[in-house]
Amino acid sequence: MTDPRLDRLLARAPALRLTIEPADLEHYGRDWTRRWTPTPLAIALPASVEEVQAIVCWANEEGVAVVPSGGRTGLSGGAVAANGELVLSLERMNRVLAFDEVDRTLTVQAGIPLEAVHNAAREHGLAYPVDFAARGSCSIGGNIATNAGGIRVIRYGNTREWIAGLTVVTGAGEVLQLNRGLIKNSSGYDLRQLLIGSEGTLGIVVEATLRLTDPPPPTNVMLLALPSFETLMQVFAAFRERLVLEAFEFFTDRALHHVLAHGAQKPFDELHPFYVVTEFAIGDEKQEAAAMAAFEHCLENGLVSDGVISQSDAQAAQLWRLREGITESLAGYKPYKNDVSVRISAMPAFLAETQALLSREYPQFDVVWFGHIGDGNLHINVLKPEAMADGEFVGHCEQVTKLLADALARHDGSISAEHGIGLVKKPYLIGTRSAEEVVLMRGIKHVLDPNGILNPGKLFDP
Amino acid sequence: MTDPRLDRLLARAPALRLTIEPADLEHYGRDWTRRWTPTPLAIALPASVEEVQAIVCWANEEGVAVVPSGGRTGLSGGAVAANGELVLSLERMNRVLAFDEVDRTLTVQAGIPLEAVHNAAREHGLAYPVDFAARGSCSIGGNIATNAGGIRVIRYGNTREWIAGLTVVTGAGEVLQLNRGLIKNSSGYDLRQLLIGSEGTLGIVVEATLRLTDPPPPTNVMLLALPSFETLMQVFAAFRERLVLEAFEFFTDRALHHVLAHGAQKPFDELHPFYVVTEFAIGDEKQEAAAMAAFEHCLENGLVSDGVISQSDAQAAQLWRLREGITESLAGYKPYKNDVSVRISAMPAFLAETQALLSREYPQFDVVWFGHIGDGNLHINVLKPEAMADGEFVGHCEQVTKLLADALARHDGSISAEHGIGLVKKPYLIGTRSAEEVVLMRGIKHVLDPNGILNPGKLFDP
Repeated sequence: MTDPRLDRLLARAPALRLTIEPADLEHYGRDWTRRWTPTPLAIALPASVEEVQAIVCWANEEGVAVVPSGGRTGLSGGAVAANGELVLSLERMNRVLAFDEVDRTLTVQAGIPLEAVHNAAREHGLAYPVDFAARGSCSIGGNIATNAGGIRVIRYGNTREWIAGLTVVTGAGEVLQLNRGLIKNSSGYDLRQLLIGSEGTLGIVVEATLRLTDPPPPTNVMLLALPSFETLMQVFAAFRERLVLEAFEFFTDRALHHVLAHGAQKPFDELHPFYVVTEFAIGDEKQEAAAMAAFEHCLENGLVSDGVISQSDAQAAQLWRLREGITESLAGYKPYKNDVSVRISAMPAFLAETQALLSREYPQFDVVWFGHIGDGNLHINVLKPEAMADGEFVGHCEQVTKLLADALARHDGSISAEHGIGLVKKPYLIGTRSAEEVVLMRGIKHVLDPNGILNPGKLFDP
Repeated sequence: MTDPRLDRLLARAPALRLTIEPADLEHYGRDWTRRWTPTPLAIALPASVEEVQAIVCWANEEGVAVVPSGGRTGLSGGAVAANGELVLSLERMNRVLAFDEVDRTLTVQAGIPLEAVHNAAREHGLAYPVDFAARGSCSIGGNIATNAGGIRVIRYGNTREWIAGLTVVTGAGEVLQLNRGLIKNSSGYDLRQLLIGSEGTLGIVVEATLRLTDPPPPTNVMLLALPSFETLMQVFAAFRERLVLEAFEFFTDRALHHVLAHGAQKPFDELHPFYVVTEFAIGDEKQEAAAMAAFEHCLENGLVSDGVISQSDAQAAQLWRLREGITESLAGYKPYKNDVSVRISAMPAFLAETQALLSREYPQFDVVWFGHIGDGNLHINVLKPEAMADGEFVGHCEQVTKLLADALARHDGSISAEHGIGLVKKPYLIGTRSAEEVVLMRGIKHVLDPNGILNPGKLFDP
């Protein structure tokens, strides 16, 4: 290696896979945000906890910053290496280590993709219920680092609820076994919970013990067309009251437009301003009747204009594609993404205010909304006009994000529901979190990562 | 007041209720552990967040330690004031502040008893599902401080899962609004989760927003008699496989002996060495048939010797009394309590080892076992022989707790499943948590409570 620091790293961990190939630096140096130019020092691909520990100890000695790296599907720049950092990719640590039938747990290495976790759980007749569109590319370690949510939070909660144990290498290079799979354990501060959602700034998750649950019940998927934003919360209430909802997702006509342009099948003859995809258990006739009752109530009261219910798994997948295909259909437009949340009860006022804000501030842009109404999470995507330069576009959008952050602060919401803060949301953290909280977070980081080598500059400035 | 420090406190918070009556010092200075002589400086009974904040700021200036105090039903000495501390009782801050139908949350002051939370939820047609025998006396703030578990963890999880937001006064006197009721919020370290289970050493919980859920389904309660410890896990597997379990509790013949002596009704003509109380949903005929199938499977395979199923709510309550009455029936014996947990899969080996350990080490004592098999939690109560002095008895018991802690460390278990560490379990924290973890906990405490005024000496030594 040309850099003597890397020679010293290899002296410490002779079998460590390390690359400085330009294509690798480019590939591993960034996540799904495309705003920063990757300039990592090198890419390390450890194969064991010991190698991860060796890297962290070396980084402390050399004063080199380390960016932990999973599937790099993040949308907040949490895995970007744009300042000469060493990228520590967990990609090769991607195995299932153990399954326990009695505990109903699966122990995995952090680099395993979410979809491989789903498959492993299914092989044992159980389910890992956290799910979202990036399932094939994202890693469980990244899910834990952002406390990933997704499309089934309304029924199963966030990643946080499914973590029975974590093995972590702290910023000081210590290996911690946190909670070790226990259900009840009141023995001091729950460092496992502190690590979840800390975006690789306190420790590197190297292994996790995941709780599994019963496989999901048989479900039906329903697509609803809505005449206006105002009826959305009433439709949600009507369905939640009558059914066990597995998902309740909404999207706008603009979102549908892009998915259809990307090859999805048109669901209704007419166009409608808003749509909902909902999935619910249909274990018996009573539940099927309840679903029809919810739909009829909405139709009779003018809350929905049209609807279709899946008659087969294939049709269910087709309806889901209308929602899950949105992100992919927008990718070519370099969208500026907002990922915000409020309490469900604050949703109507926040929606109205935000809609007014966006049509006032973004008249020139194509704005695509979708989100998880059942858990108060909205995704607002602003598409870059082809002719506009990247920098000018981001500048415009950031002005509006400031206004959105103000609205969120008024409604006690969050600037990041599930993507994390990373680099993208860092300027807006204050508002969601108080100045006192940020000071405490910095203090806690200093305890676990005294030399500040883990993902510095992410979440907050050092 | 005779102490000038208290005069200065009253100067700062003129309306604060403060008492130094000997009976109050005695009453508020200890919890359900009876090992320490209470010697608090005074008892403060604030009525507002502002008064709590004033007390903490005063304590920092004066260097007075503060013991946060809820219902003082704790069994680990977490609320004991035996070193001239000021006891800060949340007793007067016991109101429901808000209910939100859409969010399904109840916002309460920390001093409200758990049972009042149950009642308030029920009035709104919903349920707060964390439950245990001390429900009438314990407070929600104390539940949060120990991440209380109880009898329905198998179905609903621990307190941690039901906290949507916390208002906390830190050791530095700052008021934090943590998570503010959001379902999705990935905006940095989740200090709410850090505070839960921290036993009043990082901050004082003053208000909490609790998630509510649907009322429990109709259930049946079954009492089973078991021929041996060895069949216990098989019976659990047979029931868990077929039913949605709301609770699965076990107790020994000695436990039954004490409950019967305390006035409960004998369930079977014959005596059996072990018993299980289980409660499960019986929404429809299919579930009722499944319950009978589970029982018959166990009977045919010699896993249970006898059984009875509740035919009415009154009989269900009677069966539950056999389990829930145990603690009360033992109170007169000044029991030494162990509250340990292992993974369910480790239970058979740990049970066998512990049973051998106890019969070897405690031949002279009456040992009463009970616990929550469904979540790996065992309560082992050693009763003091009447003639033995308190100190001698505790000395004996602590020798055995050391051996038990060793066994737990071998089985990756916890010395405190749900009571907390407090003063009682402090000598045994190492084993459940690593030395590195304890160092990190100390560091984190220093960040939130820089002068070490909150509950010093609890959990770990300063």
